[in-house]
Amino acid sequence: MAVRTDIEIARAAEKRPIPEIAAKLDIPEAALIPHGRDKAKIEADFLAGLRDRPMGRLILVTAVNPTPAGEGKTTTTVGLGDALAHLGHRAAICLREASLGPNFGMKGGAAGGGLSQVLPMEDINLHFTGDFHAITAAHNLLAAMIDNHLHWGNALQIDPRRIVWRRVMDMNDRALREVVVGLGGAANGVPRQTGFDITVASEVMACLCLAEDLADLQDRLGRIVVAYRADKTAVTCRELGADGAMVVLLKDALQPNLVQTIAHTPAFVHGGPFANIAHGCNSVIATKTALRLADYVVTEAGFGADLGAEKFFDIKCRKAGLAPAAAVIVATVRAMKMHGGVAREDLGREDVGAVQRGCANLARHIANTRGFGVPVVVAINAFDADTPAEVAAIVDAAAGLGVSAIPCRHWSEGGPGAADLARKVVELCDTDSRFAPLYPDDIGLFDKIETIARRIYHAEAVTADKAVLAQLAAWEAAGHGSLPICMAKTQYSFSADPALRGAPTGHVIPLREVRLAAGAGFVVAICGEIMTMPGLPRHPAAETIRLDAAGEIQGLF
Amino acid sequence: MAVRTDIEIARAAEKRPIPEIAAKLDIPEAALIPHGRDKAKIEADFLAGLRDRPMGRLILVTAVNPTPAGEGKTTTTVGLGDALAHLGHRAAICLREASLGPNFGMKGGAAGGGLSQVLPMEDINLHFTGDFHAITAAHNLLAAMIDNHLHWGNALQIDPRRIVWRRVMDMNDRALREVVVGLGGAANGVPRQTGFDITVASEVMACLCLAEDLADLQDRLGRIVVAYRADKTAVTCRELGADGAMVVLLKDALQPNLVQTIAHTPAFVHGGPFANIAHGCNSVIATKTALRLADYVVTEAGFGADLGAEKFFDIKCRKAGLAPAAAVIVATVRAMKMHGGVAREDLGREDVGAVQRGCANLARHIANTRGFGVPVVVAINAFDADTPAEVAAIVDAAAGLGVSAIPCRHWSEGGPGAADLARKVVELCDTDSRFAPLYPDDIGLFDKIETIARRIYHAEAVTADKAVLAQLAAWEAAGHGSLPICMAKTQYSFSADPALRGAPTGHVIPLREVRLAAGAGFVVAICGEIMTMPGLPRHPAAETIRLDAAGEIQGLF
Repeated sequence: MAVRTDIEIARAAEKRPIPEIAAKLDIPEAALIPHGRDKAKIEADFLAGLRDRPMGRLILVTAVNPTPAGEGKTTTTVGLGDALAHLGHRAAICLREASLGPNFGMKGGAAGGGLSQVLPMEDINLHFTGDFHAITAAHNLLAAMIDNHLHWGNALQIDPRRIVWRRVMDMNDRALREVVVGLGGAANGVPRQTGFDITVASEVMACLCLAEDLADLQDRLGRIVVAYRADKTAVTCRELGADGAMVVLLKDALQPNLVQTIAHTPAFVHGGPFANIAHGCNSVIATKTALRLADYVVTEAGFGADLGAEKFFDIKCRKAGLAPAAAVIVATVRAMKMHGGVAREDLGREDVGAVQRGCANLARHIANTRGFGVPVVVAINAFDADTPAEVAAIVDAAAGLGVSAIPCRHWSEGGPGAADLARKVVELCDTDSRFAPLYPDDIGLFDKIETIARRIYHAEAVTADKAVLAQLAAWEAAGHGSLPICMAKTQYSFSADPALRGAPTGHVIPLREVRLAAGAGFVVAICGEIMTMPGLPRHPAAETIRLDAAGEIQGLF
Repeated sequence: MAVRTDIEIARAAEKRPIPEIAAKLDIPEAALIPHGRDKAKIEADFLAGLRDRPMGRLILVTAVNPTPAGEGKTTTTVGLGDALAHLGHRAAICLREASLGPNFGMKGGAAGGGLSQVLPMEDINLHFTGDFHAITAAHNLLAAMIDNHLHWGNALQIDPRRIVWRRVMDMNDRALREVVVGLGGAANGVPRQTGFDITVASEVMACLCLAEDLADLQDRLGRIVVAYRADKTAVTCRELGADGAMVVLLKDALQPNLVQTIAHTPAFVHGGPFANIAHGCNSVIATKTALRLADYVVTEAGFGADLGAEKFFDIKCRKAGLAPAAAVIVATVRAMKMHGGVAREDLGREDVGAVQRGCANLARHIANTRGFGVPVVVAINAFDADTPAEVAAIVDAAAGLGVSAIPCRHWSEGGPGAADLARKVVELCDTDSRFAPLYPDDIGLFDKIETIARRIYHAEAVTADKAVLAQLAAWEAAGHGSLPICMAKTQYSFSADPALRGAPTGHVIPLREVRLAAGAGFVVAICGEIMTMPGLPRHPAAETIRLDAAGEIQGLF
């Protein structure tokens, strides 16, 4: 039998009307703002009325350091949510929205896979409910107001060479990385060098994803530092008077989106900040809405646990007052083999010894996650090429640490394929989670970076130029010292070197650059090359994407 | 009693559920794609099923050359639609969507006024159903693919100095008018000068508004000329392989949007091409859908009749096979006074003589419109400052040409205030309209431009550089000679000089530049300074736009 593709499975799936999905969480139809028949936003007024409700259990799905193909974190998040529902629990799922631009580069899709998908996957991967377009507009309005301010006399005395607010576009477009604007004479403003990032890298995105409500969103937007004066003092969005108009552009986007899985489990898909220069998880509003309406809420964080889980705990949970009840670490036989030293082209061959060696990577993620006081279970996301002995090697390695590692077949079987995982998660949720962030608010910014590097990455040291240290000190002096750190480094290794697999020690983390996200509320620590505007490949997927004679999309997934 | 603002009237208006509005045109609920409870798209499948239905009567609302404040064309379109419904006719309205960007410059709003508005006016003026964002994305995907093509070896041998496809953003941002992209070294592509236009100026917008269906849209997009080679041969969107992916981005946007007026008359608000470098009317799909579902369809075209009506007739009606049954020319006392030589600051003072003199402008628009074989009525859009003698002067001037000029109070009274106008329109629709475009397809491109200039503008001549004439000849040789002309000139005068009011003769039209819109299917003739990316004023509206404590938008309208 031919294996069906994700898109074929998604198209064949029967969708229930979205009010029926909402009813599973007692969301009345009057609280839904429909977007088509299979997507809805939840009205802000209804959300406000939930504020005093008790919260369900929050389960984070994270992963080992992945192979370039990914280990199935979104698929496992969906599968676990479906499994909990399958066992009769009141469950909900929280995911990030997909970025549109990258779909036209490589064949893409960010809505899970196999029988563990959220629907309608085509819409979710295209314009969805327009949230990212609203973020793009709000971001670029602020940019236009900065250049307009320069044009009309620059009353705020912005140093045109020290404007840190770039523009954004939800597109892979390398030619926009570095541009000069304002050319063509005095009528076109002040010439200066700047550039574009992809929309998911916008601080507006991070603000929206961390905001509790519209008022909080406006506060955050107002605090964004857009430029500096010659005397190095900061100029904020609020000083330009842009925060109010930006909130008007974002008022609908702040309302979370409700969709369904193939098994009709409610899924909130809302917000999608970059996992490198931002914190990489869906909106606080979606997570809290889900927690107030469901007993179990399964969510994910971008990249491996060294980045994703750490930022989920130290930024999102710390700031939103969330206490995760359990964490699932997704591991695969192929990722363990890779960490055990097997080359990419040999991953298909059985190699139990390599799996055993590679489990050092898993073991460190387990220890790190437990270090946050959160109980852990390992989900072994099954692939056809896995052998029983290889799977057993992971189970044994986890057992040696007192942790269950449970083979899961949700990709091919849907929720029932992750029922054992779901039972274990329920059990863990009843144990005593004692979540605490890794570091306190009141140590120095560089101390925080060192703490993450030593305790999570097991690095020997963090190196940084004097200029970087001086910048951190300046921000501390300006009152930003209590912010948490948002680490930006490769997702493929605990170190800053993507080729350094397994569980390296003795490595050094080079802190190259720091950026202030005063609106989002964190300081970005950039360790290595970080790309904030992707390019298209030689033959972009866009060349073959089209509608077929039946009006269905070909080439996108 | 305090006069209520447009936004106060709109907010106080009771909206009916959109399926109830659709039912007035026998659109079943199953054919609606809801966007909230008060907006819906009409499904493509339902539209396809209408194809063989007979069409109702198409009524164009156009205007004299306007004052900078506008003469109320949209308001009259809405008022006339409501009046026809009020008289018991099955009526529908077709309008353009509003551009988002300009709202943050000047206080704006493009959804009619007073009691003649379409709802929800805030949504219509902001993101609405996302159509413009989809157009922005499709346009910029093509731009990214062009620069990507240069980066990966330029197999099509595009001359980087002859790329005519710019990028777009739905924002007033003068600093983006002229930019250099691709800076920062080889990894960021090929440096070159280009720029951004506002989204409504995108040829993708014009393509979408002239397309009959998705297949036609893809054909049009494929034909877009994006660049030239060193040998001056054209490179098209299809050669870059972008047309399929662009259609995927636009498939939802091509479906027309249904909303309602304050009086619950169905209104299709769909597409919004610039009225200068494009043809300035709503989508062909919306117009044809409305005509197949209603007996009377009222629509508008941008700017005064010299530009708007001419392009409506010679581009939209010619290409879509539409035959308008009647035209309404909106005139105001203040516009007639202005054309009669009164300065802007004196427009409030009675001046019957000036009105009489100014009616020369109206008279020429009447004659021009009749020249297309379309019966005409004049709507005198009433303002409080108008005196009976001034109104009578317009009525008399029109009567002298055998045309009715009917005072209308739809702004303050809604549909009933335009009932007399509606009765006259119904009467005209029963007379014999013998619509024909101004010029045939098969004369030369410059001949077409001269024909418009002489017959519509009453100009003595058209001047053009040899280079411009050579360009037109080259396009004729390349097979584009049968395209109609899209004139781009000031809307304030029949001439190319905005200060030349009334009905000037003997003037010369300077043809400065020509542009090929091979996808949309016209050649743009630029006569004068045309701005395709507006800037923000010294104090943009964005500085005061915000949500108030009740969550309502302040400062936008």
